[in-house]
Amino acid sequence: MNFPSRLIEEAVDQMASLPGVGRKTALRLVLQLLRRDSDEVARFSRAFTALKEGIKSCSVCGNLSDDDVCPICADSRRDASTVCIVENIRDVLAIESTEQFKGLYHVLGGVISPLDGVGPSDLNIASLATRLEGGAVQEVIFALSTTMEGETTSYYLYKKIAPFNVRVSAIARGIAIGDELQHADELTLARSIMQRMPYENAIGGK
Amino acid sequence: MNFPSRLIEEAVDQMASLPGVGRKTALRLVLQLLRRDSDEVARFSRAFTALKEGIKSCSVCGNLSDDDVCPICADSRRDASTVCIVENIRDVLAIESTEQFKGLYHVLGGVISPLDGVGPSDLNIASLATRLEGGAVQEVIFALSTTMEGETTSYYLYKKIAPFNVRVSAIARGIAIGDELQHADELTLARSIMQRMPYENAIGGK
Repeated sequence: MNFPSRLIEEAVDQMASLPGVGRKTALRLVLQLLRRDSDEVARFSRAFTALKEGIKSCSVCGNLSDDDVCPICADSRRDASTVCIVENIRDVLAIESTEQFKGLYHVLGGVISPLDGVGPSDLNIASLATRLEGGAVQEVIFALSTTMEGETTSYYLYKKIAPFNVRVSAIARGIAIGDELQHADELTLARSIMQRMPYENAIGGK
Repeated sequence: MNFPSRLIEEAVDQMASLPGVGRKTALRLVLQLLRRDSDEVARFSRAFTALKEGIKSCSVCGNLSDDDVCPICADSRRDASTVCIVENIRDVLAIESTEQFKGLYHVLGGVISPLDGVGPSDLNIASLATRLEGGAVQEVIFALSTTMEGETTSYYLYKKIAPFNVRVSAIARGIAIGDELQHADELTLARSIMQRMPYENAIGGK
């Protein structure tokens, strides 16, 4: 597309720089923005620079936060003895939305991936040892993805955690609730049979 | 989603205010922005405010433009005797991308739509009469959509243009090139038969 305006071209270029946004969609979004008040456009723009300038890493768990300590770590009603290890803030939000987990998190900021040049020192791992040395943590839950990289990271952390007197668990894998067995992959189905549980537990939820 | 950061929440809210962008997608886009340099984020944000502050309407055709007269109207190599009437800049870009039209445009900024409260006075119609009074325009081409509103607008303009000594035409409607007849709607197919043309014209392109 050959725009009759450099201003539009730059706005479309920037919008299309977002992943999954093509140039036609970008133009549609930019024209929609143009229809708004100047104040609204300014607020739209400011949100992203304000985020970039103001966002911090929580000094305890490593999650994105407005303050030095994030609201989850700062919440004294939460159970500081249980720490769930996740890859990023999206996993935190996903678990939080279940309202079933009352412990704290440790956000790695990724997983070990030699192909992408991501080693243990690139992740928020050192501060995990510091947390465990504090002695308050009694259980660490692995909630990393079941990819090669996720499994590698879990195993690396498992070895790191071993010296501490801490229980290590992993979230349950199995057939999703509502899914039909015939559509499940063999690996998940096999695991759900091998890791079967007493029926009373399954209906009791615990 | 209950964000642990007001900065992220505001950025996600703003991103999700774009049409067709849900909150999960918005979060994904915002986190991708966060991974960029401060300079890049600033450039991203600035593009939209700069556009809103700097964009003008071309005083001749009404198209969005950086200057008082848009590059198309300012291009003396273009044929000023033919004016194509379109709804918005997206239609201009679509026709320009064919590289087959060398005339000028007149951008209405919408179509007459009583249901949406859009009357003739809300559109860039008055300046069309001024252009025709100039005497240089010999043909006006209607390229508005074939909706009720588009057809109404074309007819309204047709009546307005009648007093001027100007040829009025409309873009050809028919079966799209490459489309199969069995999948065409009856209206388009009927029109393409009624408005059939000599075979020599169809292959000659003129």
